[in-house]
Amino acid sequence: MHAAIAKDVAGDVSDVHRIVFTPSGLTGTVEHGTTVLEAARLVGADLDTVCGGRGICGRCQVVPGEGSFAKWGITVGPDALDEQAAIETSYRGNRPLRPGHRLGCAARICGDVVVDVPATSQRHRQVVRKDLDLPPITVDPSFTLWYVEVPKLELGTPGDDLTAESAIGRALAEQHGVQPPVTPFGVLAQLHPALEAGAGAVTVAIDEAQRIVAIWPGFVDSIYGVAVDVGSTTIAGHLCDLTTGEVIASAGRMNPQIRFGEDLMSRVSYVMMNPGGERQLTEAVRTALRELVGELADQIAIGRDRILEIVLVGNPIMHHLVLGIDPTPLGQAPFTLATNRAVTAPADQLDLDLPNARAYVGPCIAGHVGADTAGAILAEGPHRGERMQLLVDVGTNAEIVLGDATRQYAASSPTGPAFEGAQISSGQRATTGAIEGVRIDPVTLEPRLKVIGVDVWSDDPGFVQKVRRTGVTGICGSGIIDVVAEMYLAGVIDRDGVVQGALSERTPRVVADGRTFAYVVWGEGDSAITVTQNDIRAIQLAKAALRAGIDLLVEHAGTPEVTDIRLAGAFGAHIDPLHAMVLGLVPDCPLPGVRAVGNAAGTGAVQALLSRQLRDEMELAVRDMVKIETATEPRFQELFVAAMAFPHASAPTPNLAALVALPEPIERSDRGDAAVRGRRRRRQETTT
Amino acid sequence: MHAAIAKDVAGDVSDVHRIVFTPSGLTGTVEHGTTVLEAARLVGADLDTVCGGRGICGRCQVVPGEGSFAKWGITVGPDALDEQAAIETSYRGNRPLRPGHRLGCAARICGDVVVDVPATSQRHRQVVRKDLDLPPITVDPSFTLWYVEVPKLELGTPGDDLTAESAIGRALAEQHGVQPPVTPFGVLAQLHPALEAGAGAVTVAIDEAQRIVAIWPGFVDSIYGVAVDVGSTTIAGHLCDLTTGEVIASAGRMNPQIRFGEDLMSRVSYVMMNPGGERQLTEAVRTALRELVGELADQIAIGRDRILEIVLVGNPIMHHLVLGIDPTPLGQAPFTLATNRAVTAPADQLDLDLPNARAYVGPCIAGHVGADTAGAILAEGPHRGERMQLLVDVGTNAEIVLGDATRQYAASSPTGPAFEGAQISSGQRATTGAIEGVRIDPVTLEPRLKVIGVDVWSDDPGFVQKVRRTGVTGICGSGIIDVVAEMYLAGVIDRDGVVQGALSERTPRVVADGRTFAYVVWGEGDSAITVTQNDIRAIQLAKAALRAGIDLLVEHAGTPEVTDIRLAGAFGAHIDPLHAMVLGLVPDCPLPGVRAVGNAAGTGAVQALLSRQLRDEMELAVRDMVKIETATEPRFQELFVAAMAFPHASAPTPNLAALVALPEPIERSDRGDAAVRGRRRRRQETTT
Repeated sequence: MHAAIAKDVAGDVSDVHRIVFTPSGLTGTVEHGTTVLEAARLVGADLDTVCGGRGICGRCQVVPGEGSFAKWGITVGPDALDEQAAIETSYRGNRPLRPGHRLGCAARICGDVVVDVPATSQRHRQVVRKDLDLPPITVDPSFTLWYVEVPKLELGTPGDDLTAESAIGRALAEQHGVQPPVTPFGVLAQLHPALEAGAGAVTVAIDEAQRIVAIWPGFVDSIYGVAVDVGSTTIAGHLCDLTTGEVIASAGRMNPQIRFGEDLMSRVSYVMMNPGGERQLTEAVRTALRELVGELADQIAIGRDRILEIVLVGNPIMHHLVLGIDPTPLGQAPFTLATNRAVTAPADQLDLDLPNARAYVGPCIAGHVGADTAGAILAEGPHRGERMQLLVDVGTNAEIVLGDATRQYAASSPTGPAFEGAQISSGQRATTGAIEGVRIDPVTLEPRLKVIGVDVWSDDPGFVQKVRRTGVTGICGSGIIDVVAEMYLAGVIDRDGVVQGALSERTPRVVADGRTFAYVVWGEGDSAITVTQNDIRAIQLAKAALRAGIDLLVEHAGTPEVTDIRLAGAFGAHIDPLHAMVLGLVPDCPLPGVRAVGNAAGTGAVQALLSRQLRDEMELAVRDMVKIETATEPRFQELFVAAMAFPHASAPTPNLAALVALPEPIERSDRGDAAVRGRRRRRQETTT
Repeated sequence: MHAAIAKDVAGDVSDVHRIVFTPSGLTGTVEHGTTVLEAARLVGADLDTVCGGRGICGRCQVVPGEGSFAKWGITVGPDALDEQAAIETSYRGNRPLRPGHRLGCAARICGDVVVDVPATSQRHRQVVRKDLDLPPITVDPSFTLWYVEVPKLELGTPGDDLTAESAIGRALAEQHGVQPPVTPFGVLAQLHPALEAGAGAVTVAIDEAQRIVAIWPGFVDSIYGVAVDVGSTTIAGHLCDLTTGEVIASAGRMNPQIRFGEDLMSRVSYVMMNPGGERQLTEAVRTALRELVGELADQIAIGRDRILEIVLVGNPIMHHLVLGIDPTPLGQAPFTLATNRAVTAPADQLDLDLPNARAYVGPCIAGHVGADTAGAILAEGPHRGERMQLLVDVGTNAEIVLGDATRQYAASSPTGPAFEGAQISSGQRATTGAIEGVRIDPVTLEPRLKVIGVDVWSDDPGFVQKVRRTGVTGICGSGIIDVVAEMYLAGVIDRDGVVQGALSERTPRVVADGRTFAYVVWGEGDSAITVTQNDIRAIQLAKAALRAGIDLLVEHAGTPEVTDIRLAGAFGAHIDPLHAMVLGLVPDCPLPGVRAVGNAAGTGAVQALLSRQLRDEMELAVRDMVKIETATEPRFQELFVAAMAFPHASAPTPNLAALVALPEPIERSDRGDAAVRGRRRRRQETTT
């Protein structure tokens, strides 16, 4: 379709011109005077528009090239595009016309031309998400916005249906070349009022199935979506601009279901024992979601009607409760889900007070592995890589995924609540006053502490004053991992986790506690915060469950080398990867290969919101995942027993050789010295 | 696929047998011991089943033939089917096993056999509707019922998703050969409870899009649908068994919107003047629908959850109000509909308290021609016939359809409320005490009356006693037609509708009324019930509007001869076709060609409920209809003027010649003598 053909078609070469769009490289031949926007439509180049050439939206800005483009044999002359027309010089829209830019809908092609479409003018633009630690993703939205001016209907126009629906459909076809959409029941009642209020000018949002999902009077520039990770403790949401792909507001709140039970199983018990309890739990979580969405919308002062989609991920029980499904079957073997598919529903049927939105609830993998894991999988990509990746999210259950591009396995392991500070004598939630970090001097056996709410360690100046305000109230989950690992490294416990009572003669930190011994972390007497033998046992059991689950998947995968470990979730974000390895929570792995990835589930939810392609990828990855049931695999029990010892029966001492060669310590925002100290100490140990 | 092939395939002819199903004539060859139900599946014969061969539902009853069937070259031996098995002899289901019948799921084929499938064992059976004056229709339901026994799920079953949805899907595939369906959001929460309550045995209803729309524990035998004509005055509903196609309950009630305005336009005015008024009107009609459905369900003692569909028809304003759409645009030019498509919505979104049902609201034809007309079209078939059919439904607007199989036209004409007794000095609704029939003696000019609630005419013995109980309170719509037609036939008014004042000298029935004259129908003095000159004018205007609309369509159709006139609705059911022709309401037509068809809209709604094919036919007929806009056609005004005279400017006297030859008088339930008298009188007139 180039010069030669153009000559044949048009007879006179000056009547047609070649146009090349960059960066796509799409090219075509168009008639003299065609607008760049029309040309983009003709050749299929991605050039955004909402107003369809009225000079209102400013989305179709392009940059004409200059000079020679040998690749396409084009030399762009100074008159390749016409002079700026009134529509451009008078344009004063939300997106200012930048120097050297033209409005694609106004600029007419008067010669061969190369036109660059900047990312901001592409519908499928690539967005880099710094805030959420996302890889760059290409926005692939489910919805498109179209502004139309619908002519006044007249009685007796032949062939005219005289319906608001067909009038809008005709206007879309004529003004945008868009196939007339279908109007679902829920939007029918809005057509007339919008046309009336906008004096015929309306903006419609159309979904991927060619349905009008929303209509507003006048020109509307942006539509929004919300991605939410519905955790059993916290609910975190991000509001995204669906056209730019930007995350523009974030908010979180406690899951109010906590009043029915701190952990998931106690909530399921509540449902079992209280008829209608599932409705109470559903109402509680939906209320929180409704409020969260309101808070997000308020942050940027938009109406809830501008939110067109809400993507929700959560564990299977949250998944069911959000959808109004009784989760009781998930509380007992065989842990049956109602469905493992992604579920789409009108948001108003989930009582979310989002009149134009649909809710997309991600797919579950198994009875204990939910849509939150599906989100984490999408974010971290264990199904995409060449290296075998281990993705672990530790809570009351640990969700474990292992895979590379060729095979993927998922399981959950019943770690229990010890890692969250429950079932630990001095355990508590990670709130102000909780000990979150511990270092034990291997010689004196004296501890140094880091307390949440106090910005210095206990041996730093000013600690005593500052800790008066917070108190020291207990030990949180990451603190427990720290102190047990340090106890092991300092020789306070042995490989079997036995607190060495003989040390009580050397230090007042080791004290008798009935027939066993305990280590005093803080305080004294009855108010002392101690780590007891039972606490160590609880951590051993939790750790063994986690590690056995991991080892089971590794065995299923053919025992590959695992060099890429991602620790997701709050626990993963706060524990020290080195300490996790010291205790054998995760297999040995070069330290740079171990990363805390934060709320990967939430990140995945944002990705699924912004890109249909990624959403499909997530559903496919979940479907192809091999589910391993730890409860029925006899091998799990054997692995569990082997994993009780520190760090592991198969590796009597941590394999620290790999770590010694590390050029840099692991940087962690508030514990920069941890890795350095850990390394130093380990060197001592391997040489003893 | 017959004996020869069977030999080739099986080697030994006794291993395979031929089976022929009647009445379909479908034939095939099956292995020895195949059940008749399996054979029906293999050859595609229509044999119903819900339980899938468990001997529970009794729907697959068949009648084996005996002797020779030359057509297929088969002689059926006594052992063509096996002996009755335990499943048959112990069968005690809802549908008793009739003598000579076998359960198709139990009877095994042991020789060549001809098997008859009675109508009651066919899924797509033909149903004759006597009660609703329906032509026989073939039930073509949107839903199928399947009973399955879902095995208990076990942890660790390889390849098992452990979801309720997939377990049911597998059971459906294995037990019925049904493709695993999708479970929409609304039903997901019901899966587990139903499986639990039924101990794994459930019945599911699947729609035409392969979605589970309802699930019940245990064996469920029947599902239901409701068809409703939502009139502006009355709402009438029929409850149908969706598998047998029978109408099993009917009920009606007043449209409670009447408190917002007697006629449609006053209700639209209410909406215009009261913000939120449309919501009040919507709530009123939905409440009535909800109650009506409850009454229908109570009549046969079923739960509302067994109702899977409600089909609604109504005029455009009712159509909009039921759907929650502001009807204001329909109250003023250009009378724009929100949509003219049929609209489907979950019934709970219309607040109908039908948890498993969807609502299907029929398509509209134009701003004044609604889904009720669409229903009437389906019932009467102006688009199906060889003769040109005129279908008229008279209310405040007259909906007029004219067509045959080659072309169809529709219009509405603004007749105003005169035909309903409004704008008439003594007019009233058709309730007890209203004069509904009048005969005037052409010699004495004395009237005879028929009063609603009194079972004899005014000159019959006993009338005086009986009428004391009811009183005579006014004249209803059909009474007005009667009296004006009789006044014309008796010469009390002339062709132009002028009351002949000169007659006041001959009879006290004609009295001065200001500058014009009136005819006294009943009573005397101030309490007299009279027909005034203004009343005559109102009827003339209404009649002219109706007739001009009809004539406009006849002209558009190329002025064909109209020999088939159907008068739909309450007005059509009560007026005397002869009197309608005397006044020129409808074109001249041999009297047997004029029929009152009652609530054709409701009949069409029932048909659309029972048959998807008929539903599609209705949508297609509506789409292909040529809409004629009376308000903008200049020709309408000319026709209107011409139609003011009685019977019509183009036909100075009624063409009664055709009627004289009639062998039988028109029979009307309560006015058997009307036609006879009318004929007699007309003979006099044509000879004078």
